[in-house]
Amino acid sequence: MRRIRLIIEYDGTDYAGWQRQDNAMTVQQRVEEAVARLTGERVTVTGASRTDAGVHALGQCAHFDTQSPIPAEKFAFALNTQLPPDIRVRGSFEADPAFHARFEACAKIYRYQIFEGPHHSALLRRTHAHAYYPLDAGLMDREVQAVVGEHDFAAFAASGSVVKDTVRRMYAARVVRRGPEVTLLIGGKGFLYNMVRIVAGTLIQVGSGKLPAGAISRALDDGSRLSLGITAPPEGLTLMRVFYPSDIDGFDSYFSDCERLYGGLNV
Amino acid sequence: MRRIRLIIEYDGTDYAGWQRQDNAMTVQQRVEEAVARLTGERVTVTGASRTDAGVHALGQCAHFDTQSPIPAEKFAFALNTQLPPDIRVRGSFEADPAFHARFEACAKIYRYQIFEGPHHSALLRRTHAHAYYPLDAGLMDREVQAVVGEHDFAAFAASGSVVKDTVRRMYAARVVRRGPEVTLLIGGKGFLYNMVRIVAGTLIQVGSGKLPAGAISRALDDGSRLSLGITAPPEGLTLMRVFYPSDIDGFDSYFSDCERLYGGLNV
Repeated sequence: MRRIRLIIEYDGTDYAGWQRQDNAMTVQQRVEEAVARLTGERVTVTGASRTDAGVHALGQCAHFDTQSPIPAEKFAFALNTQLPPDIRVRGSFEADPAFHARFEACAKIYRYQIFEGPHHSALLRRTHAHAYYPLDAGLMDREVQAVVGEHDFAAFAASGSVVKDTVRRMYAARVVRRGPEVTLLIGGKGFLYNMVRIVAGTLIQVGSGKLPAGAISRALDDGSRLSLGITAPPEGLTLMRVFYPSDIDGFDSYFSDCERLYGGLNV
Repeated sequence: MRRIRLIIEYDGTDYAGWQRQDNAMTVQQRVEEAVARLTGERVTVTGASRTDAGVHALGQCAHFDTQSPIPAEKFAFALNTQLPPDIRVRGSFEADPAFHARFEACAKIYRYQIFEGPHHSALLRRTHAHAYYPLDAGLMDREVQAVVGEHDFAAFAASGSVVKDTVRRMYAARVVRRGPEVTLLIGGKGFLYNMVRIVAGTLIQVGSGKLPAGAISRALDDGSRLSLGITAPPEGLTLMRVFYPSDIDGFDSYFSDCERLYGGLNV
């Protein structure tokens, strides 16, 4: 038995998230069906992150076991022939049989994209949330620095969440602008359910003057959801990359590549 | 009777182009239906450019006549409540009753977006063509300079085209890169049917070494389609903006804004 590691990009618009469900189509099911058609094997494809309905990924990481003799690097091309165009395997690699995409992940980077303007964008509607009011991206960038470091993010947990330990460590966070597109980049060791969308929703409200600056800081201090903003919609969110002990050294340079790619044009 | 001018953005993926057709849904039909629901009037909405099936627009310009008392600038918001999210009216203005969106257009800017990599991008598949082989964007930029100025573009006319006068004037053309995205920007007084897609297809083949440099220059000299590349697919093409005598002075600054927005990151 061999273990294969996949890097998967998907447009989550038409899926009920990553994780297999009984009554709705998910990305995991599509990938498992593609593997089954290719190898004749019924497999479980385990993803690093159970992204929510409507959330996207550029670099979801996943693993599965197979007895197929297909060379590891050929799986990407072969699986793409069996997948719809809104799911693409970007890379496939031989993995240690003990590798686990979820349990060994040591950092993740998410982006949250916002289109600013009186009307939403027809062309960006699937990947960007809409902000009607002008956003002060500089203010949002200062506001989000409060999350960096180790904090109890209890205030940022989705209501009804059953997670006991709400302490998480964030490595880096930035808000950058490129024309009418404002992007939150946030990287950390682990995230609570809906946490990035609550941070994004709060930043949108702070950036448009609907909430006073310092809201994130106050919520981290007092643990209360009350000073925070709405949960921003799923379409703006993309899982950019998952890091493992073998490539965590590349975290900083990947994060600054993202800053350059989504920032640098304050018009 | 008043004349209203609209600026319209659309994701052309699910439409058979701009122009009304008997057996397929078009953007023009959707906009005309939205005006009808709003005003109770059956109107013709005349667009500056009859974009093809699958082609997008950020700034299609169109006009229609109405007896409605709705203030001109309110039409954008009101029409958007009647339009699907893949069509957005970005602005609405009172126009001179003699204004004509098509006949008075004095320049248009198109962009053609290409995603470079071994696999296409799931998230960019609706707005970018895919180039499997690495592209030399610098070479493509030098290659495309041949179109600038007044030329007989007969070689770039779609086969079967009935247009007699194939002389057109291009004001500016650039190929820029931003990470894995390579973008052609081209602005001119008028374009032949499929011309931008033939230029883009030729540039992709020159940029990946499949056609010798100078192909565009040779085709302009000898008028033959033979030295040119394939017609690139519609999804990469977007009509960015239409200029009129009243705003043509802004052509250069808009074109350089686009260069900065889509370029400047050669990684």
